[in-house]
Amino acid sequence: MGGNVLLENCSWVVTQNRNRDVLRDKHIIIEDGKVKAITGHIERSKRFDRVIDCKGKVVLPALINGHTHAAMTLLRGYNDDTELHDWLNSVWRVEAKLTGRDVEAGTLLACLEMLKTGTCCFVDMYFFMEDAAKAVEKAGMKALLGYGMLDFGNEEKRKEELRECKKLLELLKKKGNKRLRGVVAPHAIYTCSAELLQESMEIAKSYDVLYTIHLSETRKEVHECFRTHRKYPVEYLDDLGVLNDRFVGFHAAWLTRNEISLLARKGGGVVHCPVSNMKLATGGAFPFREYIKAGVLTALGTDGACSNNSLNMLEEMKFAALLQKWFRWNAREMSAQQALDMATVNASKLFRLNNGSVEPEKDADLLVLNAGSCFMLPHHNMVSNIVYASSYFTVEHVLIDGDVVIEQGKHTALGEEGVMSIFLKRVESLMERAETGDDE
Amino acid sequence: MGGNVLLENCSWVVTQNRNRDVLRDKHIIIEDGKVKAITGHIERSKRFDRVIDCKGKVVLPALINGHTHAAMTLLRGYNDDTELHDWLNSVWRVEAKLTGRDVEAGTLLACLEMLKTGTCCFVDMYFFMEDAAKAVEKAGMKALLGYGMLDFGNEEKRKEELRECKKLLELLKKKGNKRLRGVVAPHAIYTCSAELLQESMEIAKSYDVLYTIHLSETRKEVHECFRTHRKYPVEYLDDLGVLNDRFVGFHAAWLTRNEISLLARKGGGVVHCPVSNMKLATGGAFPFREYIKAGVLTALGTDGACSNNSLNMLEEMKFAALLQKWFRWNAREMSAQQALDMATVNASKLFRLNNGSVEPEKDADLLVLNAGSCFMLPHHNMVSNIVYASSYFTVEHVLIDGDVVIEQGKHTALGEEGVMSIFLKRVESLMERAETGDDE
Repeated sequence: MGGNVLLENCSWVVTQNRNRDVLRDKHIIIEDGKVKAITGHIERSKRFDRVIDCKGKVVLPALINGHTHAAMTLLRGYNDDTELHDWLNSVWRVEAKLTGRDVEAGTLLACLEMLKTGTCCFVDMYFFMEDAAKAVEKAGMKALLGYGMLDFGNEEKRKEELRECKKLLELLKKKGNKRLRGVVAPHAIYTCSAELLQESMEIAKSYDVLYTIHLSETRKEVHECFRTHRKYPVEYLDDLGVLNDRFVGFHAAWLTRNEISLLARKGGGVVHCPVSNMKLATGGAFPFREYIKAGVLTALGTDGACSNNSLNMLEEMKFAALLQKWFRWNAREMSAQQALDMATVNASKLFRLNNGSVEPEKDADLLVLNAGSCFMLPHHNMVSNIVYASSYFTVEHVLIDGDVVIEQGKHTALGEEGVMSIFLKRVESLMERAETGDDE
Repeated sequence: MGGNVLLENCSWVVTQNRNRDVLRDKHIIIEDGKVKAITGHIERSKRFDRVIDCKGKVVLPALINGHTHAAMTLLRGYNDDTELHDWLNSVWRVEAKLTGRDVEAGTLLACLEMLKTGTCCFVDMYFFMEDAAKAVEKAGMKALLGYGMLDFGNEEKRKEELRECKKLLELLKKKGNKRLRGVVAPHAIYTCSAELLQESMEIAKSYDVLYTIHLSETRKEVHECFRTHRKYPVEYLDDLGVLNDRFVGFHAAWLTRNEISLLARKGGGVVHCPVSNMKLATGGAFPFREYIKAGVLTALGTDGACSNNSLNMLEEMKFAALLQKWFRWNAREMSAQQALDMATVNASKLFRLNNGSVEPEKDADLLVLNAGSCFMLPHHNMVSNIVYASSYFTVEHVLIDGDVVIEQGKHTALGEEGVMSIFLKRVESLMERAETGDDE
């Protein structure tokens, strides 16, 4: 924790508080990793370990990436512009050769990219998660890490997967790093047996963690579910008893109205991934208006770099708002403010974090953008600028629990060149293994 | 012109030549503003005025922004998330107070933004174009400038507009700046009389310039055209005799198959603006597949910063490809390569330029990206990386006619701080005039 930090003369503070106040010319006082005060005046006697001049800058909550497979940076640009099914097969062929070292290197590069584009925390689902955890710790980020479980109905595999899941949760408990938390992460209803889905929820309850799962990303999986179970996916999950306030569905593009009501009643939440959905042509659009009306919490995620191909939440917000408008033929659909809410305050609530707004007693997870860059001028509407015009070259600093993790666009602790060079070596080795079929 | 320039050790050259070759480890020799050779070997005796190390970089043709209203940076973020009609009215109220000084400042900021995101040339339609021309010259960019004409059927106004149009074309001729060219730019069929549309084409022919017009952006204008003329817009324009190979339609989202065939037969081209269409919720999608099949030339544009809110062609390519995939429920629709083609070689052909590919005798309008930035790793597919993953912080240099205009992300001649400060003053003054109703 960075002791006492002062963000001095912040020209704008996009608080994301209940009133969504945008304050002008304030100082932000940070103590013991938390925002202490947002004030127009500082006592002269007050001493700070660190003072950052924020004149001409806008301070907002750092962003939360609600769904990704961080290590898939290893496969960024691999087999693009292909149909979802072909794409998945080609990706799985490479993933079969993954090692923990690959995942650590891929996750570390992902952390670097996320931090440099203003994200403080991400929700991950992948394999070799103990190695992913190492990377997150090196990067100084926050993350909710889930071991992606799939059993395809095989009982032996199921037991293995559940053991692996518990192992990760135990490891994270032992680490005692408050920035790292576990989640239970069955992959999807079409890769997991009913037993796996149910036993996963028991684990989630006993460890008091969230339950995250890919949900109704494509029409195909929805129809297959209906054909098999005579129920739509959310109804099926409810029958299994796994629908409650720990439940978080990724993508959630193809829900019926009845499923949305059911989700709302049970307290579950959803994460929208517009870029990935568009790139993989999953069709339909996240029914944002219906979720809002029903009171379902909505967050935003990039998905993996292999289906995006960025991990840039600034860009993701723009895609989210624009896709809704265009899909609904209504330019008022999903405002810039609503997109920002999904990436900050709503995500924080959904993932049970203590950040997402700039308010006293909240974690000092803050993003400082350069409002004076030519891309962000003029200042008719700062929230519009952040969502629609900030995706290029505007991130200056990122603070996590008051620690300055990104300063002037650079990571303060990691040697970026080293991270990238190790990453490229792992990619080379991985592709060679995928080609030859050899293991490392 | 920058004399002899050597781009040394280019790790990748995305040539955009006929075979779309991506070359590795080449030198690019530039003489008198043109690419002279792309070679693996340089004679020792050869002398260069300037050598730029491109190790770890990717060189590609600098991008062409096929449609914008550059000076509308003045209104970036103004009245966002509102319905097209309300939005237009609020914008027009402010535009009524515009002066040439406003337009020069707004255009100069736009040039800076476009250059810093890799664009060398743009096609503009606005007012006070002699002031826009001043800005473009200061920025060292290329542009096709059109005075936006509208007469709403008023004969006096029509004569004025046509005079203004000719005045601009004369001025540009007199300037003799090869980077600046004029176009004839009637605003749209719903704001221009048949006479204005026809007389505009006569001017285009006599000055040997292109004829650019907003075309079928919304369903509303298409239906109104049909109701009035019992013809769809392209058919109506053909009846007026203005459909030929000088014709360029902006947006062109709502064409019928018959109109697309007609456009193809007459040799006209179209410019897609996906971000603007999505943000203003114009519905439908640019029928890219049909244009390609018919052989219509397609380019890409950002539209103005007021409906985007960026002028970033790197971002625009990603939106274009993803919107087509998603709209068609087909991930193979508009590949990264096709999106890049629209922003480079196809645009160059449509706008009768001599750039858009890295080949001998083409203008040395080149973009150097940092392929080693974490956003662009790994290098499975360089074209994918450019289109899907380069929009954040990767532009290093931009050359125009061999002149280094952007170096390490900064403009080599403009004082950026000064440009921004004058811009902000103009915005303040403009908004005050719009508020009070006073003129300057």
